[in-house]
Amino acid sequence: MTKKKVAVVLSGCGVYDGSEIHEAVLTMYFLDKYGAELVMFAPDVNQYHVINHLTGEESKGETRNVLVESARIARGKINSLRDFNINDVEAVVFPGGFGAAKNLTTFAFDGADCKINEDVKRVVSDTVKARKPLAAVCIAPVILAKALEGSQINPKLTIGNDEGVAGAIKKFGGDHINCPVKEAVVDKENKIITTPAYMLGKSISEIALGIEEMVKNIFELLK
Amino acid sequence: MTKKKVAVVLSGCGVYDGSEIHEAVLTMYFLDKYGAELVMFAPDVNQYHVINHLTGEESKGETRNVLVESARIARGKINSLRDFNINDVEAVVFPGGFGAAKNLTTFAFDGADCKINEDVKRVVSDTVKARKPLAAVCIAPVILAKALEGSQINPKLTIGNDEGVAGAIKKFGGDHINCPVKEAVVDKENKIITTPAYMLGKSISEIALGIEEMVKNIFELLK
Repeated sequence: MTKKKVAVVLSGCGVYDGSEIHEAVLTMYFLDKYGAELVMFAPDVNQYHVINHLTGEESKGETRNVLVESARIARGKINSLRDFNINDVEAVVFPGGFGAAKNLTTFAFDGADCKINEDVKRVVSDTVKARKPLAAVCIAPVILAKALEGSQINPKLTIGNDEGVAGAIKKFGGDHINCPVKEAVVDKENKIITTPAYMLGKSISEIALGIEEMVKNIFELLK
Repeated sequence: MTKKKVAVVLSGCGVYDGSEIHEAVLTMYFLDKYGAELVMFAPDVNQYHVINHLTGEESKGETRNVLVESARIARGKINSLRDFNINDVEAVVFPGGFGAAKNLTTFAFDGADCKINEDVKRVVSDTVKARKPLAAVCIAPVILAKALEGSQINPKLTIGNDEGVAGAIKKFGGDHINCPVKEAVVDKENKIITTPAYMLGKSISEIALGIEEMVKNIFELLK
């Protein structure tokens, strides 16, 4: 059986300034376990900032690159998001972490007025247009809603139950559905799958349940 | 049921200069899933160096701290290894990655003549003396063998089937057993459990099988 190529788009390496590492690794684990061939991507841009994860403080004067740091999670095998072509993969997943809201969009600072990285926007819109499964974890569903703002698509998705973030998603034209950590929301019409993970989860084995559900549903939609 | 506190000792954040991220996260995932309360540790020392994981080259002039970078994997909740007390935990695990051979020992550079961080040595010897389960992944079993060199303990352990590393383990007084990636070697007498992970594994779901075996055996020995 040929493996299905699935793109995973990272945003750095660490929950406070990049990809949430547990969400990224568990996404990779379950994709690999259910039969995907992983194709890793990240934008070749500087991080918004660097956070010392021990103190929670900004590490002033330090600069890190999103692609270079994401390569830590990918064990070196990763591509610039500029080279993403929807014809090369069967599905796309965005793990969460503040990187999604600081490096891929400016949602952490600008909320509903945020901007989005142009390559990220292109990946989302190309995937939806190609009618291939598109998944997002934790805060990353905000990226999908923002990317599809003003399009004909009104994605059904979840970030758990946070009213503020859900409100922004509605403003972008998305339909927010409350969802517990162990589950995933599946928008069959648009082939979009989302799960709250650490937006709600208290432990790594708990978020794994929702991420596994998400991955199962990606393969279900690929049938 | 009270959860068993299990210490996980990290060595940074990234396979080439710190903890192997998949091994660290999967260790945390299976420990949590089988009922452990995680207590994270790393030494508060500078990394030997920083490797750009995209190019594989050293990032000259850059300094990173092992505890601060390990905090990325721990989501901020991590302690200095200096504060480790064996009375506070029921078992100890060392994930792999070059950090084990560059930051916790100097094995990557000095082989069988390597030095070991004093706190790391104390953790290993206190755990064995207390007759509590002690586990290590990938290259990290070298740490256990080195720490127990010259003691009365001759640990039975695996790093897969690499003859050079196995030879160094024998020189330290350890008994090396070849082991496939999906399994773990259990030294019941000394309560030491080891699995090869990325010393042999080609994919994340493959190394997960051995890490899950390791975790199951930790709980078996805790009965």
